[in-house]
Amino acid sequence: MPGLSTRAHQLPESPIRKLAPFAQAAKARGVNIFHLNIGQPDIETPPEFFQAIDDAGIKVIAYSPSAGIDSLRQAIVEYYGRIGHQLSVDHVLVTTGASEALSFVFASILNPGDEVIVPEPFYANYSSFSFAKDARIVPITTYLDEDFDLPAAEEFEKRITPQTKAIMICNPGNPTGVLYSQSTLEKLKEIVAKHDLFLIVDEVYREFVYGDTKHSSALGLQGIEQNAVVVDSISKRFSACGARIGCVITRNDELMQAMMKMAQARLSPPTFGQIGAAAVYQLPESFYDSMIGEFAKRRDTLKAGLDAIPGLVCPNINGAFYAMVRLPVDDSEKFCQWMLEEFQYRGSTVMMAPGAGFYATPGAGKDEVRIAYVLNSDDLKLAVECIAAGLQAYPGTKQVAMSAQAGS
Amino acid sequence: MPGLSTRAHQLPESPIRKLAPFAQAAKARGVNIFHLNIGQPDIETPPEFFQAIDDAGIKVIAYSPSAGIDSLRQAIVEYYGRIGHQLSVDHVLVTTGASEALSFVFASILNPGDEVIVPEPFYANYSSFSFAKDARIVPITTYLDEDFDLPAAEEFEKRITPQTKAIMICNPGNPTGVLYSQSTLEKLKEIVAKHDLFLIVDEVYREFVYGDTKHSSALGLQGIEQNAVVVDSISKRFSACGARIGCVITRNDELMQAMMKMAQARLSPPTFGQIGAAAVYQLPESFYDSMIGEFAKRRDTLKAGLDAIPGLVCPNINGAFYAMVRLPVDDSEKFCQWMLEEFQYRGSTVMMAPGAGFYATPGAGKDEVRIAYVLNSDDLKLAVECIAAGLQAYPGTKQVAMSAQAGS
Repeated sequence: MPGLSTRAHQLPESPIRKLAPFAQAAKARGVNIFHLNIGQPDIETPPEFFQAIDDAGIKVIAYSPSAGIDSLRQAIVEYYGRIGHQLSVDHVLVTTGASEALSFVFASILNPGDEVIVPEPFYANYSSFSFAKDARIVPITTYLDEDFDLPAAEEFEKRITPQTKAIMICNPGNPTGVLYSQSTLEKLKEIVAKHDLFLIVDEVYREFVYGDTKHSSALGLQGIEQNAVVVDSISKRFSACGARIGCVITRNDELMQAMMKMAQARLSPPTFGQIGAAAVYQLPESFYDSMIGEFAKRRDTLKAGLDAIPGLVCPNINGAFYAMVRLPVDDSEKFCQWMLEEFQYRGSTVMMAPGAGFYATPGAGKDEVRIAYVLNSDDLKLAVECIAAGLQAYPGTKQVAMSAQAGS
Repeated sequence: MPGLSTRAHQLPESPIRKLAPFAQAAKARGVNIFHLNIGQPDIETPPEFFQAIDDAGIKVIAYSPSAGIDSLRQAIVEYYGRIGHQLSVDHVLVTTGASEALSFVFASILNPGDEVIVPEPFYANYSSFSFAKDARIVPITTYLDEDFDLPAAEEFEKRITPQTKAIMICNPGNPTGVLYSQSTLEKLKEIVAKHDLFLIVDEVYREFVYGDTKHSSALGLQGIEQNAVVVDSISKRFSACGARIGCVITRNDELMQAMMKMAQARLSPPTFGQIGAAAVYQLPESFYDSMIGEFAKRRDTLKAGLDAIPGLVCPNINGAFYAMVRLPVDDSEKFCQWMLEEFQYRGSTVMMAPGAGFYATPGAGKDEVRIAYVLNSDDLKLAVECIAAGLQAYPGTKQVAMSAQAGS
């Protein structure tokens, strides 16, 4: 049997998806599962999406232009204009989800052996995309007890080598829910300018911001227009994960030309998703207000519920729709599996994503889980009750630590 | 400005798409263009495709399973069963077009510096996908005057090195229209078995076979079940290029597991396309009969028309919907550009794909073009007239060679 490539062996399994067989078995036993394990909102996709596809009256599902259909690129430019960033369509490349966007960026800037500095915990698939280019993610640990804020500039400086090509962040953050401030971004700007690195920012959760702090896009950082690359997607913003439409935005023409060659090689992004996306990008401000209002309510419900569980630590969460929380357990992966295999509470259980998969540092995050608050508040309340009951019943729950914390 | 990767610089531009600006300019001048340059059929997508999407009544466009929705994988298994290949759903990974399928295969088997032997001329994007993995395509030239048949086994043996990981063919062939016989496949089987290589076969044109010879799939080659990998797509079969649904089929579990990790990293293929595809894979035999009947007519129209043009050489074409033809010109790329920039015949011109882009050997194919017979017979007749008139008017047409040939 012929052998596989090194990267095929090294590529990590998705930590989010590897519990799937246990979930399937639980469902087969008739157990209801609250899916807090994956960023799949239950919010309905705007009807304008489907209407646009109907109205298009397609007879032949033809290839679209490799960079995306004109109406969608134009709608994206107008959307960015409304949030204060002047772009032209030449700065926008439509991709098959943010996944492909990131894949194009990595392929265009990373040689085998090159490095990208990423604050951990980070979205696990960043690793997969770097492995795919035989490059390497260099983690810079952020901490739950500091609400996952970025460490000082010196911590970045320490990790910069001749192989460093980029710093990458997710803002607002998956899996942490962190929202980086303007001053944090300015700090990163100084570093990338000094070392002439790319600053790649995954902004797919841009609108999911709660409280008074506003989101600051990397596109607004003056002086590093050639370094800034934004990865974006309609998946979360318009609850259209399965449409597979994302984009990459950069004012760096050379980078855009390289990515265009890759885009041409894969021919085109999916037609249906593009047509729907062009329509929903034109939705008024009220659409966002109502959706973000709903997620703010969910965040409050989740945070209040989790804070009441003895021994569980939930940081402040200001963006996206995730919380990375610490559980009073021996091993959060074992706990997550046990919840699916051996536990139920009033006929239900909860599926969460074990924390370790979001860290590159071995051993980190072993008592953390990522919770996606993608369900309505009633379901969230039940899910939190279920987590509380599970922690009481789980044999690996640390009783001593719990009472200590409960008394503090 | 930060630098790009080596592959970003080396990646070739799509030879099919680089004439696009000249075509746009011609259209802006009011010239009608017969698009024979790209494999985009004018055939309507079956209505069952759109009906299935309607019937699905989607409210939330959610992620699908990374390997594809169950109904589609099952429909693909049944389709292969009908053409004589027993598979299970575990042998089928649904991808975002055949492009992604090939990308997963290459990433799973090729280390940087590895080699894939491919008969040239070949589909130009094979190069892009190998560049993306820092691997290399080693061409083995096939000749128009031999109807692009495969050369003897010794020619393959000569090119096999310790870096060789696979032999890849397209059957029926893009851009050549060649249909490899069962005995040709058996010959390749001997070679891959002897050297323990993968045999990757792009079979997206499987049904597009004319005359009495039947198509032989690599899935039917006994004894190399662990070596055979088939790349497939709904794009041509169901005239649904923009749906971006393909698949990769292999009985090699280890390879499938590696590709599954990549599939999980990109989350899922597009939902709409999968739903439509699951429906059209269930179409009866009569659907194929009528479509292939139409393309057989087009092939006959094109072949008869081209054979009547002095100095032009069109080989026998038995599959797919392409012909790689030799033109009596100095440089086919110049001719194609001239046709768009400076020529029109009764208000129309023809766009073709210059041949050199389909060869890895420098200088090869400079007097060839690929013609895609994706238009109806009436339009094809007009397009052929237009080519004939263009060759008469083009300053770089070789007059001497033409009369010699005309007299032979």
